[in-house]
Amino acid sequence: MRTKKIAILGSTGSIGTQTLDVIKKDGDIQVLGLTTHVNIELLEEQIEVFSPQVVGVFNSDKAIELQRKLKQKGSKVEVITGIEGLITVATLSEAEMIVTAVVGMIGLLPTIEAIKAGKTIALANKETLVTAGELVMNLAKKYNTPILPVDSEHSAIFQCLRGNEATSISRLILTASGGPFRDYTKEQLREVTVEQALKHPNWVMGSKITIDSATLMNKGLEVIEAKYLFDVEASQIDVVVHKESIIHSMVEYKDGSTIAQLGVPDMRHPIAYALYYPERKEAEYIHRLDWTKLSALSFSPPKKDLFPCLDLAYEALKIGGTMPTVLNATNEIVVESFLKKHLPFNEIPTIIHNAMEKHICINSPSLDDILKSDEWAREWSRKKVEACWQKL
Amino acid sequence: MRTKKIAILGSTGSIGTQTLDVIKKDGDIQVLGLTTHVNIELLEEQIEVFSPQVVGVFNSDKAIELQRKLKQKGSKVEVITGIEGLITVATLSEAEMIVTAVVGMIGLLPTIEAIKAGKTIALANKETLVTAGELVMNLAKKYNTPILPVDSEHSAIFQCLRGNEATSISRLILTASGGPFRDYTKEQLREVTVEQALKHPNWVMGSKITIDSATLMNKGLEVIEAKYLFDVEASQIDVVVHKESIIHSMVEYKDGSTIAQLGVPDMRHPIAYALYYPERKEAEYIHRLDWTKLSALSFSPPKKDLFPCLDLAYEALKIGGTMPTVLNATNEIVVESFLKKHLPFNEIPTIIHNAMEKHICINSPSLDDILKSDEWAREWSRKKVEACWQKL
Repeated sequence: MRTKKIAILGSTGSIGTQTLDVIKKDGDIQVLGLTTHVNIELLEEQIEVFSPQVVGVFNSDKAIELQRKLKQKGSKVEVITGIEGLITVATLSEAEMIVTAVVGMIGLLPTIEAIKAGKTIALANKETLVTAGELVMNLAKKYNTPILPVDSEHSAIFQCLRGNEATSISRLILTASGGPFRDYTKEQLREVTVEQALKHPNWVMGSKITIDSATLMNKGLEVIEAKYLFDVEASQIDVVVHKESIIHSMVEYKDGSTIAQLGVPDMRHPIAYALYYPERKEAEYIHRLDWTKLSALSFSPPKKDLFPCLDLAYEALKIGGTMPTVLNATNEIVVESFLKKHLPFNEIPTIIHNAMEKHICINSPSLDDILKSDEWAREWSRKKVEACWQKL
Repeated sequence: MRTKKIAILGSTGSIGTQTLDVIKKDGDIQVLGLTTHVNIELLEEQIEVFSPQVVGVFNSDKAIELQRKLKQKGSKVEVITGIEGLITVATLSEAEMIVTAVVGMIGLLPTIEAIKAGKTIALANKETLVTAGELVMNLAKKYNTPILPVDSEHSAIFQCLRGNEATSISRLILTASGGPFRDYTKEQLREVTVEQALKHPNWVMGSKITIDSATLMNKGLEVIEAKYLFDVEASQIDVVVHKESIIHSMVEYKDGSTIAQLGVPDMRHPIAYALYYPERKEAEYIHRLDWTKLSALSFSPPKKDLFPCLDLAYEALKIGGTMPTVLNATNEIVVESFLKKHLPFNEIPTIIHNAMEKHICINSPSLDDILKSDEWAREWSRKKVEACWQKL
């Protein structure tokens, strides 16, 4: 069997470590490059196990520290820092596939460079498509680069589309767990703590995405991502709350048939699906659904009034241009602030909504337009958060 | 758009009439031949609407009656009778596809002839594969004839397999409504009437298949059919009771992922899927699943002790050879007897079990072996039913 050569951007995060777990289990993938933001301790362990050629450490102090340590050990692994480090790993000449598992806007530039270098993208960084969907998908088309989703919902849709014509899609149905607060009242939502918000009922994930799940913004970002990934209209994407997280998403076809993808909630499945696509590689480590124990799967509409982030995302998508960029950038800032306990939970949608109202949208934006809108939104919302924080 | 030319065996039954309903809605299929057992009144109406070249009426008296009527009207439609009539319609030179919608063993010979003539088979007659699965599938391979399932469960599996390698299948999961008696006790099952058994909770179907649903034999026959159609082992086929009949069946893959096909219970969908395959033809007349109203889908294991027909089918499948033929033939006789009120409901599995015990199984049977085993089982079980009837 031929060994596939890959690099992973963000190898010390939740998706990154799970990707390496899948690779360790199967053993016919060679890891050429890894990157981290600051977690050089874990990166060092990963270097020992996977022997990459080069690693990127975004934080320059940490990069120097790691380099020194590796030198002492006599390791020949190259260490690069900053966005250059990410881009170098994203474009390694021998790598066929890049797993983009960094969190946030920082994934955009390296992903664009990887696309231009013709690397297959296993996309776990949803901000890339949320913030620059049109631009990125046009590039992917131009460079004939496959973009394989790693998000469980988009992997589900990608699997449900297998062997079908895109023209026969009627609508995409994204399932949502509803997050930890799905049964809360408006009053209860006001009192929500960071600790409560970090307890996702079904999935073990990073902290940013866990908060996004609690606000339903995660589903909103997924709606935007799905629009660009599968080239459908916003009106063709529905969200349904399915609290068991067994059905990961569905495709309804024009002939009235719906195809769904199901499984236990385990991110290693969508990761492995992208890594080995189109092969469905045998995976004993993924638990099977036990239909003798699964007594029921439930469904309900999302509570859009209690979780306004979902509608904000639909609105940003309908407006298009740089509006999703602003939605995403503001969201990154407010979530970060909430995690630092600088902002109450119910202020998250309010600030995003205000930022969208203030933003002067640019249609068919260039990369520069996107980066500037992103910067504007971050700055604007940081100030807003600060004002809010001083009032608390 | 090119007009597809087809013939329908059993056009006056439940699947036959629904097939014509689909064709009437779309209009780019030309019907060259139709057949009925005895229902010449409905056939006459169908002739007026669809103008076939030739029709088969199995019952010779009815055939003569229809011929006389048509002659009076000045119609030029040819009428043929007996099994010859079915075979003629099944092998019409211009027809590309044969919909085999007759009920019971009678579908076997015409299907074999259609396969030999290279016609694509839209298979709604499950007895064909149950009674002669190995022989029929070998013929289909030899003549390179596609066999497209019309049963909703098999169509679901066929859809879930779309774009996937057969080697990556882990197991097939057939869903069962559980029939009208799924919540009955053993005592209640003894008192079951024909009228109760004919009330299926979800599907509107012919009387034979409705009784088979009530005994779970229908699911047993589907397990056998699935084994031959998708070339898997009996141990790779599971049955789960799903009383809402929304998930029509599923495929679990070796990578741990499960793909399911869902829809409202409407046989016109699997019929249309086979008729237009591989196109998913837009079908406004099929109601869509409404996820805001579908509150839950439930699952439970089948009650094998209360409904022994399911295990009998698995047993027949494991023994193989002519044993499924005997299972099927005996079942046809006992269901017919139950419908005539000559046999109580709970005697159905007993007589089938006894017939299987008595039968001397022939491995890798020829068509002649199959026909003889079928005949033996019918005769044997008729006598058994008679003895039972005299005791009542």
